Amino acid sequence: MTQARCDLALPVDVVDAAGLRRTIELPAERPLTLYVDRREVVTLMTLGQAPELLVLGYLLNQGLIRHVHEVESVSVDWEVEAAAVHTHAGIDGIEQRTARRIVTTGCGQGTVFGELMEDIDRLQLPAPRHSQVTQRTLLEVVETMRQHPGVYRRAGSVHGTALFQGTTLLQLVEDVGRHNAVDTIGGWMAMRGVDGGDKLLMTTGRLTSEMVIKAARLGVPVVVSRNGVTAMGLALARRLGMTLLGRANGRRFLCYTGDERIVFEAALQALC
Amino acid sequence: MTQARCDLALPVDVVDAAGLRRTIELPAERPLTLYVDRREVVTLMTLGQAPELLVLGYLLNQGLIRHVHEVESVSVDWEVEAAAVHTHAGIDGIEQRTARRIVTTGCGQGTVFGELMEDIDRLQLPAPRHSQVTQRTLLEVVETMRQHPGVYRRAGSVHGTALFQGTTLLQLVEDVGRHNAVDTIGGWMAMRGVDGGDKLLMTTGRLTSEMVIKAARLGVPVVVSRNGVTAMGLALARRLGMTLLGRANGRRFLCYTGDERIVFEAALQALC
Repeated sequence: MTQARCDLALPVDVVDAAGLRRTIELPAERPLTLYVDRREVVTLMTLGQAPELLVLGYLLNQGLIRHVHEVESVSVDWEVEAAAVHTHAGIDGIEQRTARRIVTTGCGQGTVFGELMEDIDRLQLPAPRHSQVTQRTLLEVVETMRQHPGVYRRAGSVHGTALFQGTTLLQLVEDVGRHNAVDTIGGWMAMRGVDGGDKLLMTTGRLTSEMVIKAARLGVPVVVSRNGVTAMGLALARRLGMTLLGRANGRRFLCYTGDERIVFEAALQALC
Repeated sequence: MTQARCDLALPVDVVDAAGLRRTIELPAERPLTLYVDRREVVTLMTLGQAPELLVLGYLLNQGLIRHVHEVESVSVDWEVEAAAVHTHAGIDGIEQRTARRIVTTGCGQGTVFGELMEDIDRLQLPAPRHSQVTQRTLLEVVETMRQHPGVYRRAGSVHGTALFQGTTLLQLVEDVGRHNAVDTIGGWMAMRGVDGGDKLLMTTGRLTSEMVIKAARLGVPVVVSRNGVTAMGLALARRLGMTLLGRANGRRFLCYTGDERIVFEAALQALC
């Protein structure tokens, strides 16, 4: 696996509302065309923080591979804006499996191949009594995300997604799209064999159906957003038995479904 | 053309950070599968404000049709979550033309078919001296958007895109994804034969490469966002000679490129 991380922000000259020139930073965004066994699969637009993990997470999330062990190598070369994946045994029926398209609009027109919806009923999250989270943990997670230094602070216009175990931040990925950020988290988990059952995902982006499905595929039962949720995201979370929280900021949050996983504490309730 | 507008927001019960139950509204989001001459093309996830115009705008923006006159009828039926488009003469090579995929991440993994990038150098925007905009107009447009009542105010989690002529708001569309919102504006313009050359687009969403290309295909030379721009969005706007503004809020904005179209006024500059 290459380590082709690249510059995440670029300086740009702008003119402000008063007509004055100044220099600000913008998040970088690059096309990365994914080839699997020399076959072109898709072009992802990414910030480039961890492109190899993004590619792995994408293949896993799309169900094109079941396990990272199926992959022999991932080579990212920014000169040609390409990621070449070689598998040990090829991918059965890759042509048909990448043929159906759903253009979703979790703020973009996101692509999910049709198959993704078909197997959600096979996804199993841990029972609420085995995956509880305290109100205190939730508030600390929100605060940790708020304080994290990253591209967003320098340049704005990116989404961050972070994986937590209790109040410990395990990994935070920023990307131009929150879908790529969560796919990259998925790649990271797969490479380390990390299980999602006792984890929490927090994202700065909205919780759309795609985000909920992606989190469920990672086995994460509690998903929190600084932003809101869509009706479809909520419907899927209910069907999956996921705990979904939004509008998480400062000492506030809204739990849309799955509040049986949250342990409220009398001492804290007065503060919220 | 049907008029299948549907409920845009739904009531939902939530638990807040203090453990209290209350009811809020969420934006609706529905899958809409597009069939062109009985062939399945794509599934769009949409709020459903103006699905027929969305479908037309999508076909135009993807270059699948060149003119609304090619379309005989558009029928949206929410019972079966389908939009059936019938064309007068069919679409040449529709199979190949919908086969390439770019998954972009203007905050989602947006689908643009490969062709879209290929013809941007054919797009022509009016010369700056024929499409100027005053600083005062920009500030009024920003304020009009801020005050507009809509789903965002009631339920959050949607993006709005509006078409202005001077300070006059011609049309505002909200959708779960800003790409659908701008495609719907495109459908509206096409149905009325509205030219984009003397117009301004303002959106609440980020200006990614896709948003810039979509605006350019509508012929709109000035594009403003309440949010930021990505490096790729900026690079395309420069290539197209578009005026791109972001962080437009209150009496502030940043012009990333094309400031030769902006007429600053001494009296106003002190206020910004």
